[in-house]
Amino acid sequence: MPGPASLWFGGDYNPDQWPEPVWQEDMRLMRRAGVTLATVGVFSWSLLEPEEGRYDFGWLDRVLDLLHDNGIGAALATPTASPPPWFTLAHPDAMPVTAQGVRLTHGSRDTYDVCAPAYREASLRITRALAERYARHPALRLWRVHNEYGTHTHGEHAARAFRAWLRERHGSLDALNDAWTTAFWGQRYSAWEQVQPPRATQYLPNPGHLLDFRRFLAEAMRGHYRALRAVLRAAAPDVPVTTNFAFGSWVPVDPWRWAPDTDLVAVDVYPDSTGLDAAHQHAFAADLARSWGGGRPWLLMEQATGHLGPRTRPKAPGEVLRHSLTHVARGSRGAMFFQWRASAGGAEQWHPAMLPHSGTDSPVFAEVCELGALLGRLADVGGARVAEDAAVLWDPECWWALQSPSLPSPDLDYLAAVRQVHRVLWRQGRTTAFASPRAPLPDLPLLVAPMLYLASQQTARALADYVARGGTLVATYLSGTADEHARVHRGGCPGALRDLLGVRVLQHHPLDPREERVGVRGADGSDWGCARSWSEYLDVVDARVEARYADGPLAGRAAVTRTGRGAGQVWYVSCDLGDDALGKVLSRACPPARTTPPPDVEVVRRHTREETWVFVLNHGGRPVPAAAVDLPGNGQDVLSGVDAAALTVPPGGVAVFRGARRP
Amino acid sequence: MPGPASLWFGGDYNPDQWPEPVWQEDMRLMRRAGVTLATVGVFSWSLLEPEEGRYDFGWLDRVLDLLHDNGIGAALATPTASPPPWFTLAHPDAMPVTAQGVRLTHGSRDTYDVCAPAYREASLRITRALAERYARHPALRLWRVHNEYGTHTHGEHAARAFRAWLRERHGSLDALNDAWTTAFWGQRYSAWEQVQPPRATQYLPNPGHLLDFRRFLAEAMRGHYRALRAVLRAAAPDVPVTTNFAFGSWVPVDPWRWAPDTDLVAVDVYPDSTGLDAAHQHAFAADLARSWGGGRPWLLMEQATGHLGPRTRPKAPGEVLRHSLTHVARGSRGAMFFQWRASAGGAEQWHPAMLPHSGTDSPVFAEVCELGALLGRLADVGGARVAEDAAVLWDPECWWALQSPSLPSPDLDYLAAVRQVHRVLWRQGRTTAFASPRAPLPDLPLLVAPMLYLASQQTARALADYVARGGTLVATYLSGTADEHARVHRGGCPGALRDLLGVRVLQHHPLDPREERVGVRGADGSDWGCARSWSEYLDVVDARVEARYADGPLAGRAAVTRTGRGAGQVWYVSCDLGDDALGKVLSRACPPARTTPPPDVEVVRRHTREETWVFVLNHGGRPVPAAAVDLPGNGQDVLSGVDAAALTVPPGGVAVFRGARRP
Amino acid sequence: MPGPASLWFGGDYNPDQWPEPVWQEDMRLMRRAGVTLATVGVFSWSLLEPEEGRYDFGWLDRVLDLLHDNGIGAALATPTASPPPWFTLAHPDAMPVTAQGVRLTHGSRDTYDVCAPAYREASLRITRALAERYARHPALRLWRVHNEYGTHTHGEHAARAFRAWLRERHGSLDALNDAWTTAFWGQRYSAWEQVQPPRATQYLPNPGHLLDFRRFLAEAMRGHYRALRAVLRAAAPDVPVTTNFAFGSWVPVDPWRWAPDTDLVAVDVYPDSTGLDAAHQHAFAADLARSWGGGRPWLLMEQATGHLGPRTRPKAPGEVLRHSLTHVARGSRGAMFFQWRASAGGAEQWHPAMLPHSGTDSPVFAEVCELGALLGRLADVGGARVAEDAAVLWDPECWWALQSPSLPSPDLDYLAAVRQVHRVLWRQGRTTAFASPRAPLPDLPLLVAPMLYLASQQTARALADYVARGGTLVATYLSGTADEHARVHRGGCPGALRDLLGVRVLQHHPLDPREERVGVRGADGSDWGCARSWSEYLDVVDARVEARYADGPLAGRAAVTRTGRGAGQVWYVSCDLGDDALGKVLSRACPPARTTPPPDVEVVRRHTREETWVFVLNHGGRPVPAAAVDLPGNGQDVLSGVDAAALTVPPGGVAVFRGARRP
Repeated sequence: MPGPASLWFGGDYNPDQWPEPVWQEDMRLMRRAGVTLATVGVFSWSLLEPEEGRYDFGWLDRVLDLLHDNGIGAALATPTASPPPWFTLAHPDAMPVTAQGVRLTHGSRDTYDVCAPAYREASLRITRALAERYARHPALRLWRVHNEYGTHTHGEHAARAFRAWLRERHGSLDALNDAWTTAFWGQRYSAWEQVQPPRATQYLPNPGHLLDFRRFLAEAMRGHYRALRAVLRAAAPDVPVTTNFAFGSWVPVDPWRWAPDTDLVAVDVYPDSTGLDAAHQHAFAADLARSWGGGRPWLLMEQATGHLGPRTRPKAPGEVLRHSLTHVARGSRGAMFFQWRASAGGAEQWHPAMLPHSGTDSPVFAEVCELGALLGRLADVGGARVAEDAAVLWDPECWWALQSPSLPSPDLDYLAAVRQVHRVLWRQGRTTAFASPRAPLPDLPLLVAPMLYLASQQTARALADYVARGGTLVATYLSGTADEHARVHRGGCPGALRDLLGVRVLQHHPLDPREERVGVRGADGSDWGCARSWSEYLDVVDARVEARYADGPLAGRAAVTRTGRGAGQVWYVSCDLGDDALGKVLSRACPPARTTPPPDVEVVRRHTREETWVFVLNHGGRPVPAAAVDLPGNGQDVLSGVDAAALTVPPGGVAVFRGARRP
Repeated sequence: MPGPASLWFGGDYNPDQWPEPVWQEDMRLMRRAGVTLATVGVFSWSLLEPEEGRYDFGWLDRVLDLLHDNGIGAALATPTASPPPWFTLAHPDAMPVTAQGVRLTHGSRDTYDVCAPAYREASLRITRALAERYARHPALRLWRVHNEYGTHTHGEHAARAFRAWLRERHGSLDALNDAWTTAFWGQRYSAWEQVQPPRATQYLPNPGHLLDFRRFLAEAMRGHYRALRAVLRAAAPDVPVTTNFAFGSWVPVDPWRWAPDTDLVAVDVYPDSTGLDAAHQHAFAADLARSWGGGRPWLLMEQATGHLGPRTRPKAPGEVLRHSLTHVARGSRGAMFFQWRASAGGAEQWHPAMLPHSGTDSPVFAEVCELGALLGRLADVGGARVAEDAAVLWDPECWWALQSPSLPSPDLDYLAAVRQVHRVLWRQGRTTAFASPRAPLPDLPLLVAPMLYLASQQTARALADYVARGGTLVATYLSGTADEHARVHRGGCPGALRDLLGVRVLQHHPLDPREERVGVRGADGSDWGCARSWSEYLDVVDARVEARYADGPLAGRAAVTRTGRGAGQVWYVSCDLGDDALGKVLSRACPPARTTPPPDVEVVRRHTREETWVFVLNHGGRPVPAAAVDLPGNGQDVLSGVDAAALTVPPGGVAVFRGARRP
Repeated sequence: MPGPASLWFGGDYNPDQWPEPVWQEDMRLMRRAGVTLATVGVFSWSLLEPEEGRYDFGWLDRVLDLLHDNGIGAALATPTASPPPWFTLAHPDAMPVTAQGVRLTHGSRDTYDVCAPAYREASLRITRALAERYARHPALRLWRVHNEYGTHTHGEHAARAFRAWLRERHGSLDALNDAWTTAFWGQRYSAWEQVQPPRATQYLPNPGHLLDFRRFLAEAMRGHYRALRAVLRAAAPDVPVTTNFAFGSWVPVDPWRWAPDTDLVAVDVYPDSTGLDAAHQHAFAADLARSWGGGRPWLLMEQATGHLGPRTRPKAPGEVLRHSLTHVARGSRGAMFFQWRASAGGAEQWHPAMLPHSGTDSPVFAEVCELGALLGRLADVGGARVAEDAAVLWDPECWWALQSPSLPSPDLDYLAAVRQVHRVLWRQGRTTAFASPRAPLPDLPLLVAPMLYLASQQTARALADYVARGGTLVATYLSGTADEHARVHRGGCPGALRDLLGVRVLQHHPLDPREERVGVRGADGSDWGCARSWSEYLDVVDARVEARYADGPLAGRAAVTRTGRGAGQVWYVSCDLGDDALGKVLSRACPPARTTPPPDVEVVRRHTREETWVFVLNHGGRPVPAAAVDLPGNGQDVLSGVDAAALTVPPGGVAVFRGARRP
């Protein structure tokens, strides 16, 4: 991928919703805002191919030319996420089918069956036509395949493809029967054609079946992407290709497997809350995106200028800037939005935009222009590597497995557990890398495994090696429990990690978080707050007790343990501690390398060989003197041009110091 | 329509549920209660036509003769709301289909597809048979077509009819694509047959699509009604024809369009609460019904003798009377109930009735008899016109549009907003007319537009004219936002009303009503309570600030504005104020013409040229001396015969003063 | 049925989930735990008949031989609750269909259409094969047909069978139309083929239709059972046959009709709460099971070693013992569990087991071993009859009728009402028998009829006779309301019991239990607590007032009445009193024969002609001296061997005294 002249800044651009005179206004205002990249064509299939095989590229030609004339690049999308109504009518079998057997139809977006041959063919056809026409257009900077892959389907096409995938994965029916424990409840298959997607059934489904279907869907989506990518590659070998990953519990995508197929990881980030928590969720998403790509530059492809959620709220002054800069700080090669101009109609007519309904004198547009100007001063940061302090294991398969309706508690929330660990590290001023339990572990001093429910023997060995080499591992409850087929390891929890952790779990004691609280006390008697939804009866075989339960049926028994293994240390946390207590555990297990920044202040460092960049995002209400964070020598704030020594970052403000790297 | 000798009093009468000896008891008790009208045949299709084309009218002959012999009139219904099981079996395609594709079947009521040709034909057939047989029956007073039109359907018949209706409405596919903004999410249609009812789809639906489908369904229902009415008209030109409108967010009926097709607007009124709020809901429904008919007499066709809801509760002593009289006061030509005798079985076996399970010595039957006696003394009121003080815009299309899942807040509740304005005026002793934004505006000094989300340029002009002529308009938040296709007007809120109101909305600030409260203060510093679910960042272009936000991100900014336009005044309320503050706004904008009655006392006036009638309904716990309300000269209470000067209306009681009109 | 040498102890055993070496460990550990019976083959159809007509019995031969070699008996199940995937594929019409028309598929358990001919035939085929092979196997102790009958279905097979059942039940269509009040809402049927199962329809369903469909389903299930039982009987005339009843509001089974078809009533007991309430639910279920079988020995076929529910929690120390012993005390001929060894995979991989994931040193396995040892000492108790003190009417048809969506309150909870009466008696130390309103009433001094909504004239006569003979009847609100078709009796509540109770209900006053409370005071002015969800306006015709409402619209009116009839007494409780007040009513109506045991202590007595056994289960936290309960002469604790006089039952502990019966 060719290096960029500057950071990308812009958003989804849908001129097809507006008469052409508005396009001219768009160009003028994009230039005013400093836009450098516009994502076009995401939902234009029906316009580009109004009937099968007949194309109308005229309007898109004009859009791309106009962008180019105004110095703006284009991220050109395959419009495959929304097949046109004529396609639905001609190929009803290519529509997704719910588990209840309802065949969906057009009228929204993302309504396709990724396993349907007709859909695959039509996707390739429109992609070929786009590739042929625009491969050499001077505005083209990036191909974006599809939009937020993720539509589930349970129909016959999925059934056929699922069976093929299962044969490949399990080799034999016997192996599948064994992996899914089909002996339970009499589910044993005696021929492949008996296997179906998880469809409406009488009572609880089989967890192994559910898990494999999620894996299969993820691979089916990736297969579709790879087919389209091959077309684009062939037509324009030098233009990078990517797709924008959505993030959510329902998303059947495994970015660890998929990221290597992209030239640039791209993500859409829509936090589900506001205030400091939204700021943290941006940082969390950014660290994931960087990690998926193995540290390569990546791209924040979509975010909003307001808070989404049940209520669409404006962001507070400065939030658009801070949220964008946390991404740039953590390696994004730009900051993109959905979308440029608010739509008058359609399902997202109230989705916040760079240019809102109320127009150019809205506070949002002013901040968008300010952001464009700031990003222009950060072009050089691309060469600096993000400095990472700790790693956290994150595994979509584990997430899927923990959506089983058959678990011992409905309060087990994998995302919340992973986010909590990341948040605690974030508040300690540590920048986090994520790691897959099925890939080489990063060379960082601290590795946290929150609720790593699935852990093969191979993962257990990798973790043991990491510790033996001197690393510190902190594992929380349920880690190690089950094998890759979600079968509980013999001997119960912590399963594959039993020897490494030096404890056995004799009983689970789930708690009702609305009614119960069990106190936890450190070995020195200090108050560690409460366990809220989970506790365990531990048999401490070979470890030291660091904290104990203070009341309830487990009063006096071990809650947190630690033990040495080779050159390293291993901690086990058997309950869901609050942020403060978990912070205590992580600090003791591996003290932070630098002073913790003031509360509500986010600090990210990047280094080249000679230089250091320090991003300071002040999410709080108090001014932060530059001295409160560890700065590079002879540094200046790139944004304001002021010397580090003289600068105070105002409430809600940002600064990016650049200076000589300290030895 | 011939003038009635007296007010109508009675209810649905279902003798087919009982052996004939019970009918004799019914007649005796109806006479005792003073019943004058019985609605018959509402759900008798299967009995009247037990198999296709074979009729059995014998029992209905006997019922009508019996009623006539006892001096009771009949409202004869077409039984079309419940086609018989044999019809379902012969015409499964005439059953409604849900958006999920589930075809419903018989076993309840209202199970029909209003767009199905077979259903239309069968409806006409049974209607013709009834018309032929009973057009000249001496008991016949009124034809009632159907029951509470309202069954949605999404099947193929609906699809075909929807397309035809869309062609007519939009003229061309291009116009439809434009109106619905189908460019968004790639929904553009390239042929009419691609357009379907809103069916199960992958994600959010298109708001323009949803809105037009509601409009279409309303017209499909009206078309069915008109076809049946034509049959009845032809057979009995002098007998009035109507249908009973249900009221609810799901009801796909536009009474503004439909009322002109009735000889008498008829409504069913079932409040969803108890106590004073139920009393207000009755007044609200009555004002709607009168306004739909343009001030003509109308009819309360159904109400209950108890409170419905999750719990079926008895009404407090006096409530049956007061609820009935609020309707008569507001123009109803009677008070009817569902139903005469409580059913032993069936889905509504616990629905309150005039004659409950426990029989004639129940408190309910006693009050029913008292009501019958009182109504007998009010026959003359029919000639007096209801005096109206203010008008409120109410628009079912706006209600439908505000059911879109794509709005900036889930707390936008159109019905609650309209009800609140009506309630505040009701408590101020003002009688309200409702008006359609698509019809000439009433000549009243105050016009309130609560949450008028849809406002075409034509509506905006009509409102401007109203103000220019000296009227006072009070518009609340979101008014003016979108055009008739639910597309946001360019420039954002308040859209079409921007110039008239003299403000612009730069940002919406929705609030979580369970967690947030933002104070509002008058320009004089007085406390106006709180905004609970909505606030706005206003740019005051050409108006005076009457109140400001007191805290939160908008602290100090304008919350309520006012400005003069021509001879009139315009107010804008940018948040959802409580009743007290809204009352303050309405009183200042246009002071009530008369003294406000004591709290919990409802007063309605009617006038002929010479006389005035004053209805006083005391919903409260304290006696109300006649002097507390402005009475006609030389008046008497028609119910008790006592002179106005001497009378006190007891707690829970009623009085109807009649006397000379004051100059 | 041949008498057992000892009590049965064990659980479901699923060796097919494990490699054969694990079986050897199972045998060793079962012997260690004292297991005497293992339930095998429950979900093994797919393994036993891997394709249609091909059988593989080898593994089951080895399992049964192994059990026999280790001195363990087998309860051999027909595996019919889970037909194999090949069956689904070959017979999709034999899968159940939801009311919405969704045809379910395999992937869970219990997915069959009990009305489908193909399913019936396949069930008989595998049952015949099992019977032929194992009828004479020396390990065989018991045939268990199926598992927890209960899958609803609404498809065409069910429709056909339903119609046949209705013809039989009602005789004619006219009778059915009358029974269901189909005149209401125009539902009258003119041909049998128009009648369908209750399927998705537009609005509220018909309560008579719903009730008859539950009755029909119950009979359809029983028919399937009887067909299979006939096969097993023919093959092994001496081996008892049963099925394990599940208990829940959704279960379409009437144990009063079904129990006579079993050689031994068997039940699965899974309380939905923890602590003392779980202990009570065990006692409640045990009394039901004994009563269903008319006092014959019965079997606790399944329970869990932990608490199920949203959270799977371990039982407190001693609970597994106490819960098991309450069953044995109340007549169970053993204590069985689901399941022996926790499953590694499958939907119930976290279901508690006798041998949990964590293995033999878990607290659970220790308690299981202790239980096995104790049960070994109780073999003689089988000959002693359970002493009963009072009876409670319990009627599944009444439960089904009270699931109608058309009732006057959503808070009417039949199970809660019956459980409350049982709980109050349990706390008073009285052992309860249950009785059916359609069978001869038991000869006990107290009979309680909680919320007996359905009461035919025949039931009313039987209750009157019971009272006339000297019994005391306590009926609570809504008793007597409706006939067997759920039609309200003429004259309203208490319907068929009006004359017996001496009161009439003029109005129902349901309360919102979250917002309302109405005080109740005894005739002597004492505080009886509050009514929480129901109250009634009574007309006391011929009774004495025992308590009155203290506030609300019924203040001062009768709440509880009593009257004498013949040699007996009748009480009526018109509201839902709390436990304390209800306890007061029951104590006054019929004082307990013995001293009430200390709180939280459960006492059950059994007698032979010469001996008395007293089970004492101490659920509380305080030691209970033997003197606190009425003990047999010269008694000893069979479990510890200690003399009664010397023994104190420790907190959480149990004792079983055996001694000479006192005259």
